[in-house]
Amino acid sequence: MAPPAAPSPVVPAAGSRQVRSLVPQGMATILPHTARRVRRLEEALLSQLDRWGYEEIILPTFEYLDVLAPGLEPAVIEQCFQFVDRTTGRILLLRPDATAQIARTVAMGLTGSMLPLRLSYRTAVFRYEPEHAGRDREIFQVGAELIGAQDAGSDSEIITLMVQCLRQVGLPAFKVSLGHVGFFKNLLARSGMSADAQKRAEHAAARRDLPRLEEIIALERVSGAAARGILAAPALCGGDQVLEEGRRLAGKSASLREPLNRLATVYDLLVSAGLKDVLLLDLGEFRGFEYYDGVVFDVFAEGVGSEVGGGGRYDHLIGRFGRELPSTGFALDVDRLFRAMALPGDGTIHARADYLLSAPSRLVHRVVELAARLRESGCRVIQGKMGHPRVRPVQAAIEEARNQRAAAAVIVGAPGTRKDEVVVVENVLAAPPMPPGSPIERSLSLKRVTLDWLISRARERQQA
Amino acid sequence: MAPPAAPSPVVPAAGSRQVRSLVPQGMATILPHTARRVRRLEEALLSQLDRWGYEEIILPTFEYLDVLAPGLEPAVIEQCFQFVDRTTGRILLLRPDATAQIARTVAMGLTGSMLPLRLSYRTAVFRYEPEHAGRDREIFQVGAELIGAQDAGSDSEIITLMVQCLRQVGLPAFKVSLGHVGFFKNLLARSGMSADAQKRAEHAAARRDLPRLEEIIALERVSGAAARGILAAPALCGGDQVLEEGRRLAGKSASLREPLNRLATVYDLLVSAGLKDVLLLDLGEFRGFEYYDGVVFDVFAEGVGSEVGGGGRYDHLIGRFGRELPSTGFALDVDRLFRAMALPGDGTIHARADYLLSAPSRLVHRVVELAARLRESGCRVIQGKMGHPRVRPVQAAIEEARNQRAAAAVIVGAPGTRKDEVVVVENVLAAPPMPPGSPIERSLSLKRVTLDWLISRARERQQA
Repeated sequence: MAPPAAPSPVVPAAGSRQVRSLVPQGMATILPHTARRVRRLEEALLSQLDRWGYEEIILPTFEYLDVLAPGLEPAVIEQCFQFVDRTTGRILLLRPDATAQIARTVAMGLTGSMLPLRLSYRTAVFRYEPEHAGRDREIFQVGAELIGAQDAGSDSEIITLMVQCLRQVGLPAFKVSLGHVGFFKNLLARSGMSADAQKRAEHAAARRDLPRLEEIIALERVSGAAARGILAAPALCGGDQVLEEGRRLAGKSASLREPLNRLATVYDLLVSAGLKDVLLLDLGEFRGFEYYDGVVFDVFAEGVGSEVGGGGRYDHLIGRFGRELPSTGFALDVDRLFRAMALPGDGTIHARADYLLSAPSRLVHRVVELAARLRESGCRVIQGKMGHPRVRPVQAAIEEARNQRAAAAVIVGAPGTRKDEVVVVENVLAAPPMPPGSPIERSLSLKRVTLDWLISRARERQQA
Repeated sequence: MAPPAAPSPVVPAAGSRQVRSLVPQGMATILPHTARRVRRLEEALLSQLDRWGYEEIILPTFEYLDVLAPGLEPAVIEQCFQFVDRTTGRILLLRPDATAQIARTVAMGLTGSMLPLRLSYRTAVFRYEPEHAGRDREIFQVGAELIGAQDAGSDSEIITLMVQCLRQVGLPAFKVSLGHVGFFKNLLARSGMSADAQKRAEHAAARRDLPRLEEIIALERVSGAAARGILAAPALCGGDQVLEEGRRLAGKSASLREPLNRLATVYDLLVSAGLKDVLLLDLGEFRGFEYYDGVVFDVFAEGVGSEVGGGGRYDHLIGRFGRELPSTGFALDVDRLFRAMALPGDGTIHARADYLLSAPSRLVHRVVELAARLRESGCRVIQGKMGHPRVRPVQAAIEEARNQRAAAAVIVGAPGTRKDEVVVVENVLAAPPMPPGSPIERSLSLKRVTLDWLISRARERQQA
C-alpha cells in the first residue's frame, strides 16, 4: 500500500554502523493527504457493492493455521506470516487471502443463512513477497463474494459488478481478461502427464513461459495433437474468435467443450450487459490461487504492470471446510488501483480545513459555539490557539491559518467588533508568501461580518 | 470486537476427541448486520474528527519490536503478539497501541510538518488479554492526536472533541473522569518511596486497591501526612470541591500544586465549553499506559463495565523516538462504544436491499440497465437469478425477494407487460409466511408500472 507515501526511513542502529530500516519491508505507511484519497476510493467501491446488495463482513486479522489450511495451497502457506499462539500453542497466521477466510466462515459459522449469500469486505492480507516487489506485504483489498450460486448468471453478475466498481471510481482504461481454468487443466489431464507435471505446466502457462512448457512436455513425452494443444492454448487471447479456435483445439472432447461452452455463455451475458469493449477472452488465463475451478478473470489497467484485481469461480473451496457451495467472487488491490488512477497531485497547496478560529482565552465559549455551528454546516474547522496576542491578533490568526492549511481565518473578539460579529479573512492560502514580519493582512481582504452571514456563506459553499 | 456477533464455533479436532476452537480466542468475527452498524459508527466518529481538522493516517499492522520498544513499557511488550521476520531475523509485533506508533512515525517520518499536527486513525490493536476478557485481543479503535501543542487549550480541545464525537454518535449517558497523573506521582515521589514501590503503588491506585496501597506504604515505612495523602488521593473524585481538597493535601508543595493548577485551568476551559455536566474530577485517575504525564481522562458509559475510551497528555513519548513534541490525544474502543449504545436489534426482518430484479435470460440487458438506473438513485438492488421459470415467474420472484430480504420484487418481461413496463410487488417482507406452494402473490399487491414511474418512486423513497 502507500502509493506516493513516505519512503521507509532508515537510521543507524544503536551502537553499530549498520543501517537498519525502521518500517518493516513491504508495509504500509499512508500519510494524510494520500490516506484521504485511498479511503475515498475504498468508500466508493464499498458503496457500489452495497447498492448491489453485497453486505460487508469483518473477519479476524489472524487465524489458526490448522483451521484455514484446507483453503490454502502449500505455496501460499509458505508465504504466510506465522507465529505461535501463546495461549494454545497452536500456529496462527495473518490472513493471506480473504476468500479462503470467508469460505471458512461461511462453511462453519453462517450455516443458517439463505442462499445465495452476497458478501463484501475491505481488509488487508499479508504475504511475504519477494524483496523487489515493493510495499506489498500488507495488501489492502476490497472484494465481493457471491456464495451458493452456480448458474452462468452469477459469473456474469460478479464480473459486471467488478466492472461497475471500476467505472464508478473512474479508472480510465482497463481490460478484463476472461478465461476458464477447466480448459487448460483438461488439456493437460487428457495428455497423460503425471499430476506433478500438470501442476508445473499450469504454473508455466500462468507465466506464459513457453520454453518451460515445451521442456515439461518433452520430459513427459507428450506429443502430437495433445502437445500442440498445450502449447497453443496460452496464446489464445483476443475477441470472439478465441472461442472458435478453442473449439477447434477441443475437437469432440466433452471435457474441453464443456468449459468453452460455459465461458461462451458467460461472455454472451456480459456482452448483453454492455461490457464487450472491456472484455478480452483468454484461454491461458490463470489465477494465483489453485482453488479456482471455473470462469476466472483478471483486470489490467494502463500504467500498472500487474493486475489491479480479479477473481473467479470456486465451486469446491467452501466444501473443503465442510459445506459444498458453488461460488464466485473478486478482489481489487486498492493500492494498485490507486496508482492506476493516477489521481492528480498537482503540487498546489490543498486546504485541509475551511476555517481556523481564533479568540482571546476569555472568549473560548464563543469559539466552541461558532465552531460547532460551522461544523454542523459540514465545514472542517480547526480551533486555533486560544489566547491570541493582544498585538496584531489578526495577523497571528492569518499566520496560524496558513500554517494549518485552513482556507480562511476567523477572528472572534477582534478590536472594534460587536458580540455578534467576527473578522473573517478568506483565501489565506492563495496569498503570496511574505517576508517575515511584513504586514501580511494588507494583501488579503479583511471583512467584518455577522455570525449569521458567516454561517450562511459556509452553507452555500458546502452546497456548491 | 464483534458485539452480538457469531459465537466462536468449535468442532472436534481431526483424529481426536478433543474440541478445539475454530477462531482464535478474543478475535473479531462481525457478521453483516452488525458490521453495517459498526462501520456506520466508525464513519460518524471519523467524520466528526474530519470536521475538526484531524486527518486520518494509516499505519502498518506490524512493526519492528526494537523500533517501537521505546514507546512501550515492558508490561505492554509482554502482552504483544510477536514473531520473527523471515527476511531480516528481527522481531516483529502486531501494533499493541496506536499512539506509540504515531509517535514513532511523527518523530521519524513527518518531521517537516507544521505544528501542531492533528491526526486521526481508525485501526485495530492487538494484545494478549486474560482469558476471561472475552473478544478483545483484536481491539478496534478510532482516535485522534494533537501533536506539538502544550497549552491547556489543546487539552481542552482534545477532550471537547472526544465528547462531541460521543454526542454525535448518540451515546446516551456517559461521564468523563478527568485527572492529572502528576498529582499522585508527585505524592509518591515526595514520600521517599523506592522507585519500584512507586510503580507498584501507581498500579494499586489505578485499580483503587486500597489494602494493597496500605501494604506498600507500610513496607516502605511511609507514615504521617505523606501516607495519609497517598491513601486519600484515590478517593478524591467528584465536582469542583475535589480541587480544593487536592489543594489542602498539596499544602505548599509546588510539585503538587502545579498539576492541580493545570487541571483547574483545563477544567475551567471545559466548563466554559459547556461540558460541565459530563465531567467528573478524579485525582486517582490513571491511564493504562505509563507514557501519560499530564492531564488524563477516561470515558465511562452506562451499561459497560470498563471505560469506552480515554486519553491524555504525553509530552515526552515522541521525544523517546528522537523529537520532543508535547502532545495529547484520545482513543475510543469501537466495540465497547457499540455495546454502550445498545443499538436497537428489534427482531424485525430488516430489508437488506430495496429491490430484487428478475427476468428471463434473454432480457438480461434490460435488467442490467434498470438496475443501474435504480442504483444511481441510491437504491440497493439485487439482481435475481436470470432465466426465471415460465410458470409463475412472479411468484418465483417474490419468493426470491423474500429469501434475499429485498423489500420489493420487480419482474421484467412478465406476461402482458410492454417493453417500458415492469411488474412491481412492494413490501414483500411484510407479507405473512405462506404454506409452501400457496399462491403468495394473492396477499400482496401487484402493480404494472412504467420504468419511469418506478425510478421516480425510488428517488422519492431515497429522499424520504
